[in-house]
Amino acid sequence: MTNTNRKWLLAERPEGEPDMDSFELRETDVPSPAPGELLVRTRFLSVDPYMRGRMRDAESYAEPWDVGDALKGGVVGEVIESASAAYDVGDLVTGEGRWADYATLDADEVAPVDPTVADPEAYLGVLGMPGRTAYFGLLEVGEPKPGDTVVVSGAAGAVGSVVGQIATRNGCRVVGFAGSDEKTAWLTDDLGFDAAINYKATDDYRAALDSAAPDGVDVYFDNVGGPITDAVFTKLNLDARVAVCGQIAHYNDEEISTGPRKLPGLISVRARVEGLLVGDFATRFGEASERLAHWVASGELEHRETVVEGLTNAPDAFLGLFAGDNIGKQVVRVSAADE
Amino acid sequence: MTNTNRKWLLAERPEGEPDMDSFELRETDVPSPAPGELLVRTRFLSVDPYMRGRMRDAESYAEPWDVGDALKGGVVGEVIESASAAYDVGDLVTGEGRWADYATLDADEVAPVDPTVADPEAYLGVLGMPGRTAYFGLLEVGEPKPGDTVVVSGAAGAVGSVVGQIATRNGCRVVGFAGSDEKTAWLTDDLGFDAAINYKATDDYRAALDSAAPDGVDVYFDNVGGPITDAVFTKLNLDARVAVCGQIAHYNDEEISTGPRKLPGLISVRARVEGLLVGDFATRFGEASERLAHWVASGELEHRETVVEGLTNAPDAFLGLFAGDNIGKQVVRVSAADE
Repeated sequence: MTNTNRKWLLAERPEGEPDMDSFELRETDVPSPAPGELLVRTRFLSVDPYMRGRMRDAESYAEPWDVGDALKGGVVGEVIESASAAYDVGDLVTGEGRWADYATLDADEVAPVDPTVADPEAYLGVLGMPGRTAYFGLLEVGEPKPGDTVVVSGAAGAVGSVVGQIATRNGCRVVGFAGSDEKTAWLTDDLGFDAAINYKATDDYRAALDSAAPDGVDVYFDNVGGPITDAVFTKLNLDARVAVCGQIAHYNDEEISTGPRKLPGLISVRARVEGLLVGDFATRFGEASERLAHWVASGELEHRETVVEGLTNAPDAFLGLFAGDNIGKQVVRVSAADE
Repeated sequence: MTNTNRKWLLAERPEGEPDMDSFELRETDVPSPAPGELLVRTRFLSVDPYMRGRMRDAESYAEPWDVGDALKGGVVGEVIESASAAYDVGDLVTGEGRWADYATLDADEVAPVDPTVADPEAYLGVLGMPGRTAYFGLLEVGEPKPGDTVVVSGAAGAVGSVVGQIATRNGCRVVGFAGSDEKTAWLTDDLGFDAAINYKATDDYRAALDSAAPDGVDVYFDNVGGPITDAVFTKLNLDARVAVCGQIAHYNDEEISTGPRKLPGLISVRARVEGLLVGDFATRFGEASERLAHWVASGELEHRETVVEGLTNAPDAFLGLFAGDNIGKQVVRVSAADE
């Protein structure tokens, strides 16, 4: 272990699409854990679309990042020094850390990582916040019933890929939108989706849905927004449920963009559209983690992580989310187990 | 009683805003009731915004009217001939009749009208479908809690005026949008609204809301759509509920119009937006009718009807809905009690 800690700061608030100008890498000393804290060496760092919102100076569910502050994010790491009886040096833990080599984390706010269940990076995806978002969002907001048609946008992403698989487990017909043939093949061949639409290969999403969802849409799990969502809304069935989980197509909008009005279409089908935030289910995280870990360990739930190597490439990994570079969960490997 | 029955037919399907070309008045013979039916002389005919949808050749919750067919609508009328043991000649009933002097109605599908509770025309408004829509839409979809701010668009209409009063009964702060100073004065001075906004007197609905709903919006009962709704959506509080009851601003649109995207804003507040149709609560109509009649009879619930005189003016009364001519429920007096 060196005495140097590299960490990424927010250099400036982006307008529209962020670029490297928003980020600055700075070297500081490695911090020391206060009583009750752990010094954690980052193995994997999570980059997530919602972080775009934290780059804004606007009140939202996630605290805004301040210019000049170290960027926060989910990490999996190894305990290097422990000032808590709860964890020993060498333990793997996950929690909210920093875009950095090292960070001190409150031992009460981390969870153990069991590498016998899945590779540690899976604790940032299927076994982490994205997996829990999929679990509660689909089951509690989407309320899928056997025989329902469930459509998922961003279906090859960290959340969408789990949503689709839980929906198939519930006896639903599952249709996913994703942005490459490689992704759609993963959905249908490996994850059990009934159909997948490569939205970069067609402009006519409505026609694609007419074919992939001939009985209409009972549940729409939306990670994306924009024209895909516009098309899905024209196919909603009676009593349809829409879980609005993410709207990545709009995260870089500086003004509220316009689109086809959706409220007039809700009346005749009495659809319900609901914003979703996983934190609202915090008291039930244990239930979700247990079931997801069971499905992963038994091989019933597939998962995939796209790994970018090196802390210096963390901003690129983040920016790549908006280009759809990732399949499954996008993570950054900050250090290897044998370092 | 004459042998002549005048009735309005759908002459042609309108494109955009309907006009008199869509309507044709034809004289026919007065029908005879089959067993189980009543011959009813129309006293009052209801014209309602949702009827615009029935003029389209498109599947929806209300069966489309066919070109050449007599127009249907809620009526209050007097039984002239009875082929049912359930009603006697001279009884007042309400049910789905025709835009006509006379119609035969199935005795199983009408309800009695008690003129000691309220004037008969109130059975087309506060004691009819609009009142029940307000009751279930606010209580079951809006789910108001004491202290909530409830905003109602079309607040001086048949549904909105009842919504606002039930909300005040539930301890809410109630804000209404309406289209004249006479209407807003009725809301605040007679109905107990805390604030009312004349949307024809300002373009800046957001500023008007900042003042009238300083704590944001917990429940939005939408009868209107368009720019009022766009402004209200920028003020939704955490866990807000939006009941989409009507979208009169869009009923004459031939194409889906565009507006500010609303889904991105739903996530941070986890708002729920739900289409509402009163028919979904049909098994509980008795409960609503009983409570509404009690409130009306005791003077706790104010109501008002705007009466257009004469069957020949029924299309005008209908077209006037889109200009906001009515305060409270718009009805047409087709015959008087002493005729």
